Amino acid sequence: MPKAYLSPRNLRFLLHEVFHVGDLCQYPYYADHNGETFDMVLDAAKQLADKLLLPLFREMDRQPPEYIDGRITVHPQVRTLMRAYGEGGWIPASFAYAEGGQQLPVTIANLVGFILGAANYSASIFPFLSTGAANLIRTFGAQDLKQTYIPPMMAGEWQGTMALTEPQAGSSLSDVQTSAKPTDGEYYLIKGQKIFISAGDHDGVDNVVHLMLARIKGAPVGVKGISLFVVPKKRPENGQLIGNDVFTAGMYHKMGYKGAPIAHLIMGDQADCRGWLVGEANKGLSYMFQMMNEARLGVGMGAASIASAAYYCALEYATERPQGRPLAAKNPMTPQVAIAQHPDVKRMLLFQKSVVEGSLALLTQCGIYTDHEKMSEGPAKHDYFLLLDLLTPIAKTYPSEMAIQTTSAAIQVLGGYGYTEDFDAEQFFRDTRIHPIHEGTTGIQGLDLLGRKVLMEDGKAFRLFINEVNQTIAQAIAVPSLEAQADKLAVHLDQLAAITDYLATLAKTVPAEVFLADATLYLEYFGIVAIAWQWLKQGLVAQQALHAEIGEDDRHFYQGKLHTLRYFMEYELPKTLGLHARLLSLDRVTVETQASYLG
Amino acid sequence: MPKAYLSPRNLRFLLHEVFHVGDLCQYPYYADHNGETFDMVLDAAKQLADKLLLPLFREMDRQPPEYIDGRITVHPQVRTLMRAYGEGGWIPASFAYAEGGQQLPVTIANLVGFILGAANYSASIFPFLSTGAANLIRTFGAQDLKQTYIPPMMAGEWQGTMALTEPQAGSSLSDVQTSAKPTDGEYYLIKGQKIFISAGDHDGVDNVVHLMLARIKGAPVGVKGISLFVVPKKRPENGQLIGNDVFTAGMYHKMGYKGAPIAHLIMGDQADCRGWLVGEANKGLSYMFQMMNEARLGVGMGAASIASAAYYCALEYATERPQGRPLAAKNPMTPQVAIAQHPDVKRMLLFQKSVVEGSLALLTQCGIYTDHEKMSEGPAKHDYFLLLDLLTPIAKTYPSEMAIQTTSAAIQVLGGYGYTEDFDAEQFFRDTRIHPIHEGTTGIQGLDLLGRKVLMEDGKAFRLFINEVNQTIAQAIAVPSLEAQADKLAVHLDQLAAITDYLATLAKTVPAEVFLADATLYLEYFGIVAIAWQWLKQGLVAQQALHAEIGEDDRHFYQGKLHTLRYFMEYELPKTLGLHARLLSLDRVTVETQASYLG
Repeated sequence: MPKAYLSPRNLRFLLHEVFHVGDLCQYPYYADHNGETFDMVLDAAKQLADKLLLPLFREMDRQPPEYIDGRITVHPQVRTLMRAYGEGGWIPASFAYAEGGQQLPVTIANLVGFILGAANYSASIFPFLSTGAANLIRTFGAQDLKQTYIPPMMAGEWQGTMALTEPQAGSSLSDVQTSAKPTDGEYYLIKGQKIFISAGDHDGVDNVVHLMLARIKGAPVGVKGISLFVVPKKRPENGQLIGNDVFTAGMYHKMGYKGAPIAHLIMGDQADCRGWLVGEANKGLSYMFQMMNEARLGVGMGAASIASAAYYCALEYATERPQGRPLAAKNPMTPQVAIAQHPDVKRMLLFQKSVVEGSLALLTQCGIYTDHEKMSEGPAKHDYFLLLDLLTPIAKTYPSEMAIQTTSAAIQVLGGYGYTEDFDAEQFFRDTRIHPIHEGTTGIQGLDLLGRKVLMEDGKAFRLFINEVNQTIAQAIAVPSLEAQADKLAVHLDQLAAITDYLATLAKTVPAEVFLADATLYLEYFGIVAIAWQWLKQGLVAQQALHAEIGEDDRHFYQGKLHTLRYFMEYELPKTLGLHARLLSLDRVTVETQASYLG
Repeated sequence: MPKAYLSPRNLRFLLHEVFHVGDLCQYPYYADHNGETFDMVLDAAKQLADKLLLPLFREMDRQPPEYIDGRITVHPQVRTLMRAYGEGGWIPASFAYAEGGQQLPVTIANLVGFILGAANYSASIFPFLSTGAANLIRTFGAQDLKQTYIPPMMAGEWQGTMALTEPQAGSSLSDVQTSAKPTDGEYYLIKGQKIFISAGDHDGVDNVVHLMLARIKGAPVGVKGISLFVVPKKRPENGQLIGNDVFTAGMYHKMGYKGAPIAHLIMGDQADCRGWLVGEANKGLSYMFQMMNEARLGVGMGAASIASAAYYCALEYATERPQGRPLAAKNPMTPQVAIAQHPDVKRMLLFQKSVVEGSLALLTQCGIYTDHEKMSEGPAKHDYFLLLDLLTPIAKTYPSEMAIQTTSAAIQVLGGYGYTEDFDAEQFFRDTRIHPIHEGTTGIQGLDLLGRKVLMEDGKAFRLFINEVNQTIAQAIAVPSLEAQADKLAVHLDQLAAITDYLATLAKTVPAEVFLADATLYLEYFGIVAIAWQWLKQGLVAQQALHAEIGEDDRHFYQGKLHTLRYFMEYELPKTLGLHARLLSLDRVTVETQASYLG
């Protein structure tokens, strides 16, 4: 039996009882599927994860990739994995049949990512990146690009990447300098450097296909002059793969997430690096945002998945480890009890459970919005787009930031053992620390949420969100045992709305720097309210389910949901009080502090 | 020039401007010293740290101790270090001249620990443990034990340890089972196992001296039957060291703090492990608490020191790394600015500074109380004892818990680079994670504070603390520019007092398990208020200093203090609001949740 790293029961609960994902099959595109086939897909993913990913969890950490003479070698099993992803059809799972896909809802594809990530996050990112890269070419690329690059990526033979970051630019994409020089041929000559490219080079595949941002000579400065290119490591010519002047200059040695090779690339040192334009010139950044938004949800899912594995690691230890006695029974002659009996340990476990299952619910919610947005038309489509766009920075950041704390809590539950390499808790803590950094730091997500998303279309996305939450509140208020929780969420939602109005007004009167100084805190606030919403939603279903004739296991499962809802409302939701006080304050200390004061 | 890992200016500020440590020299015991000699001691510690500890910071992590055939080998430089500690007189620095010490105030000795820990925490724990062990023998041991064991420990030739934890007991010391069988000689025969023994074995010294808890055959059950023994690895007999049947059964491979060897010991496998009783039988735990309380403050100091080093790592990066532009000046043609200019980065830096310098101030405060307690008599002595006893769990826990967050913030400031081994931020994050675990977990500290310290002597310690804080508030309220901050602290102090009264009353009517269920949250709350007090205290001094004719550097230094005070009051103090709401709630969710709900 592989150890537990997620709850299949919880996946079924979310899919069928909370989100009724089978309803998506009313769309003709998904008509071949139903709730049962979705379960089968997730079961198959779990089997793959158990069989191939889980056994490599520690190994890929202890034997990380190596960079030797301009090449990165990864764990030898990565090649086996890539073929398994290819043969199982996992990489294009959500693509259309005509494109080699399975027309699975994005909701399901995302949950596959959760399962793989919980078993072995490093191993899960290879296919994920290929899916995103293939999807970009599929959506915006010319026919010949599609034919050349998508099939081998779908087969797991070639690796896809997204290549944005540059040494001098970091998060500041307007400073991208990689250049693309038009030629007489159909290609451009690429010259520049990219850093922090995930799976940017490795020997588990025969080729690497970079979806790369670069600036065509003479293009406008800033983000409006950025174009998107396909830049393969090796280019196909006359049925052969020949070097494309993409040099792997180095590999980052990381604290965690070690199984995944992160590369530093230099293009065009020999003036022979060819890139093929995707879509129109100077529209690269908007294209890239398709992959970036997918990747941001993927990062949130990755954080939730690691947090899930850490939670089950801590739970197993806590239920098996005897230590101490109930505080009221200090007689040292009585047997010790499992530490899961101590309220402070239960608090740490409930904390983890609330973050893991709350995050997973919000990410599933985002998957549902994505599928509806893909399938619907007209105003409804736009509404779904707005909800998804608004919630993306939250669904990326809440799990990412909180997983640091929950994996830390997992270590704490294990005590001294948690700090040792004999248990997995420490690896989860190291692995998950990347998430608030990659695909846009938490600071960037805050600016995106407050500086753009809540203000866009005169606040329409925000109003749609409020409506969604109010629907859940209205349902819960009608259930006597949930009324108090519903009231509590209503109060906090009102406060979030008031703070948002206040900040939107402030935006008109103060410099952007002042208005956005605490955007990260606003994001944190919003995240807590959004997760509270998802807990109330789950509590509604659980409360109803307890009225039916159910078995002991189900009763404990639903009680667990109701207790975790209570935990969240009691311990997590009040964290907004401090954020609220700060966001209303007029003291601009961070703006006014000079760097020279900090020494 | 070695890189910055602490602020010497801030040390001088705390010593001379805030705490007037020179005043301690009014006590005859310290009469040979003065403020200047204290500075010289700290300068010498800094030189030692720069020369010997700092260069080994990464090396001791990358080449951790090895366990081979029952022996632990550490970095070869550890032997050099131990001799340097010995030759410099660092180990018994606070001991009396007659005992080979320098009669330095504990305040100063603790700050030496801060300096060494900031340069290289792993390297700093070897002498620290020897000091504590020697101090136990010095205080409670018989003359021959002192003569045999203290001199080689002071010389850095032998290592001292504290050996409490056992496999079946963990934090539950009442379950200690290591046995001590009386013999016809002056020694006992020891049999049992100890785990997680810091510096429990290594080849940087010629012998290891364990201060070990064990149970004399026939002793009462529980903590009242625990005695303290000196159990050397090798025992001196006829001028030679011979094996004492203490077997090193293993070594823990840890996530961080790797330079320090943590051992698993088995005593008496050959029925020839001899232990010498320290003090009276069955009083071992109360003796051990002397070392444990020192160690708890040492852990807090260790966390503050790592947080300090991480802060200067982040600050250096932030002031040198150009990226992005002020939000109001998005023209991509203008040069990028250092990221220390961005408010969100300044927020992360101020956060770190507020925790580092706030923690160090509280720990210095505890040092001052310790010295007064040591030197004074009668009721005053007892008052200092109570203040120190009350604040010990806070001074241990606040830095320990917060350093996880501040070292994480340091990584975040460095972005992707922070996650790589090219910078030190990731090591600080790994190293500091031990602190909420060793020397009593955060959960244990919470029980100690709420279940014992605030209730003891009918709340006298707590009232003394309130008086101390109120004195600072009274001074600050008289300063117009600090009045608002003083008012804010006064409100939060009142709330802390009210919550404490509420909980003390609750303790009489509900089971201990309910009363103490949120002891960890109460501890967190108390910690924030205590640090806010230390910031107001620092702000008072800084505000006054700005009125004098001072140079540019000093002006920036004091402005930095005032801005960090503002930061703390704006961003950290409001975190108590959520804790307050929770502590007043009657929902006993953690008590009522069954472990079976958590699956």
